[in-house]
Amino acid sequence: MMKPFRELINFEDAKIIIMEKTGVMERKEEVSILQACCRVLAEDIVADRNIPGFSRAAVDGYAVRAEDTYGASIKNPIRLRIVDKVFAGDTGSKKIDKAECIQIATGAAMPYGADAVIMVENVKVEDEHIVITKPVYPGANVSPEDEDISKGETVLREGDVLNPSKVGVLAALGRERVVVYSLPEIAIVPTGSELVPPGNKLEYGKIYDINSYTLSSLLMNFSRIHVHDIVEDDEDSMEECIDSLLHMDYIIFSGGSSVGERDILVDIIERKGEVFFHGIALKPGKPTLFGKIGSTLIFGMPGYPTSCLTNAYVLLLPSVKKMARLPHEERKGYAVLAEKIVSTIGRHQIYTVKVRDGKAYPVFKESGAITSMSEADGYIEIPGNVEYIEEESKVLVKYF
Amino acid sequence: MMKPFRELINFEDAKIIIMEKTGVMERKEEVSILQACCRVLAEDIVADRNIPGFSRAAVDGYAVRAEDTYGASIKNPIRLRIVDKVFAGDTGSKKIDKAECIQIATGAAMPYGADAVIMVENVKVEDEHIVITKPVYPGANVSPEDEDISKGETVLREGDVLNPSKVGVLAALGRERVVVYSLPEIAIVPTGSELVPPGNKLEYGKIYDINSYTLSSLLMNFSRIHVHDIVEDDEDSMEECIDSLLHMDYIIFSGGSSVGERDILVDIIERKGEVFFHGIALKPGKPTLFGKIGSTLIFGMPGYPTSCLTNAYVLLLPSVKKMARLPHEERKGYAVLAEKIVSTIGRHQIYTVKVRDGKAYPVFKESGAITSMSEADGYIEIPGNVEYIEEESKVLVKYF
Repeated sequence: MMKPFRELINFEDAKIIIMEKTGVMERKEEVSILQACCRVLAEDIVADRNIPGFSRAAVDGYAVRAEDTYGASIKNPIRLRIVDKVFAGDTGSKKIDKAECIQIATGAAMPYGADAVIMVENVKVEDEHIVITKPVYPGANVSPEDEDISKGETVLREGDVLNPSKVGVLAALGRERVVVYSLPEIAIVPTGSELVPPGNKLEYGKIYDINSYTLSSLLMNFSRIHVHDIVEDDEDSMEECIDSLLHMDYIIFSGGSSVGERDILVDIIERKGEVFFHGIALKPGKPTLFGKIGSTLIFGMPGYPTSCLTNAYVLLLPSVKKMARLPHEERKGYAVLAEKIVSTIGRHQIYTVKVRDGKAYPVFKESGAITSMSEADGYIEIPGNVEYIEEESKVLVKYF
Repeated sequence: MMKPFRELINFEDAKIIIMEKTGVMERKEEVSILQACCRVLAEDIVADRNIPGFSRAAVDGYAVRAEDTYGASIKNPIRLRIVDKVFAGDTGSKKIDKAECIQIATGAAMPYGADAVIMVENVKVEDEHIVITKPVYPGANVSPEDEDISKGETVLREGDVLNPSKVGVLAALGRERVVVYSLPEIAIVPTGSELVPPGNKLEYGKIYDINSYTLSSLLMNFSRIHVHDIVEDDEDSMEECIDSLLHMDYIIFSGGSSVGERDILVDIIERKGEVFFHGIALKPGKPTLFGKIGSTLIFGMPGYPTSCLTNAYVLLLPSVKKMARLPHEERKGYAVLAEKIVSTIGRHQIYTVKVRDGKAYPVFKESGAITSMSEADGYIEIPGNVEYIEEESKVLVKYF
């Protein structure tokens, strides 16, 4: 009736094969820096100017020529005439001559001719003059024009993930657009005549398409998602669908839960490309298929919602992030198991748990149950050679 | 020339005041479940049906009437006629009568009349009959119609943050749209005649607007950002701007770095609403203003890029997330300080560091330098009464 899975591959090998076969994105695109956060830079950014680009007053005070202050002391106070004032943002049209000064605000560009600033606290103001009793050296209280960034410096590098401050560096250099790596294009294809899109009426024996929505939600921040119409799981429909989607980076089939449907996909991929594995010694998540046609990676995900989504977390997401050139860090931590778990010998198990006050409570019902996932904070992995884990054991929880 | 800050408030008090004055979002909106991930649910979701909604075969095999199998043994094999087959997704028009069976796939809806499934491994097939040598009980290998979710059950609650699996629950129930809390509307207003938008030519003494881009990047996932044109920092322009933005949840001024400009804002807010504080004993980030006009929270952020962005991380982001009803978890961890840091007595300091192999390296240059942020992985806080931290000290790094 249905062909059994050929050889099951073990979970660790499946992960290795997927990551080995996943290339990194080479396509690039230009985006506005307002949309660039979290994207991966595809160019080195070399400063084409000094930042701030002019020397600035480092304190509120008076811009002077340092040489005019030499010799000042309490016995020999020196008077400099206040000829103007500048605020941050005033352009540099002002200048001073011998024995003059300009009132200046912190951050304002130094006037032409001035090479030092005397702090406001260190002067006395009399009749539009300042009176000083101490000399200053050239450069005193002045920030250099390349204080932040020097022209020619490589400030950001290809491969950097742009965060708010790196976007700020681009803005500081006056860049309004930036070249980043494109996001992977992913087609999600729900298959199976039992599926109905949410929002429509259900006949007896049919179920709503869940996986298109969970997969989209999981991947949308790292890729461009295209949800395909539901495809009948016969050979012609599947083949036509694949042929129409080979410009994608990934095609992800989800839904066909039986061995028979998987086989259609296997046959098509074997004919047009390569099947890397079909069936993992994993629970849930056994009926998983991974292959490639041309440059398009193809996943056949289990139809059951929990199997599909846990597989997407543990196998698909790391691949998509690798292709997108994004780091993939698992958030994990130890917890104490609240009750004994009995596992299946010979299959690596992904067991969903919720964590409260350091205790991990099993929430796994069965792989068809979306509530096995929706109540879970994360999962523990139980290797294939472990039959059970005792209550109160310390377990490593990987968080969703 | 410039009025000094009135009383500086301490950093902890500033945080408390901001969080106290921040309300939570009451506006709601309906979105497609494809766009609902990471949003906050504004309704309880009560199941209006059982999920899956029909009883299913839990194994591949043959659907039977259990009573037809009673008495079967090796000595007394019982034969049942195979009248049909059903796959997952076939609708429930099929039925069996006495002494009949239907071949059934895992997950397929049980045919009318059948109440048990015999595993494919436990039958012999002969002439369109199955031969069984062991009885089954009613319900054997059958999953109930409410196995996943029971009608009337509250499956998701108002306030839940929708993650991929919770979106899956909505899909499972056939919900195509869902009511979520609206995102805070935030106007970002760059102020100051020294600012020029990136992409334009700079005159001497001017600088590019950085803060609009760093703030947008930081907040865009939790709010709707409206970047305003650059506003001159005179009273009329500022007041007109504020009046035009009082339908926002937040107005964030950034740019005016001098005490004088701050004062304009203080005067306007005092006249039209309330100033909660003006000036924090914080480095960088002292010239920070927080107030409210009507229901609109107003932040005056320091103009210097590092001051502005660190303040946004430590003061603004927690407020925006609270309003958006999102949890705000600080990612933190210990590291060993790679070199001695000298701090400023009397001001709480936010000191940016990069972390490599467990060592925290200071990257703070000065608050005007965007590179103080772009090279940083996070920051350490140095309380106002601490003058320096020795090399090799263990420090708590809060990550950006």
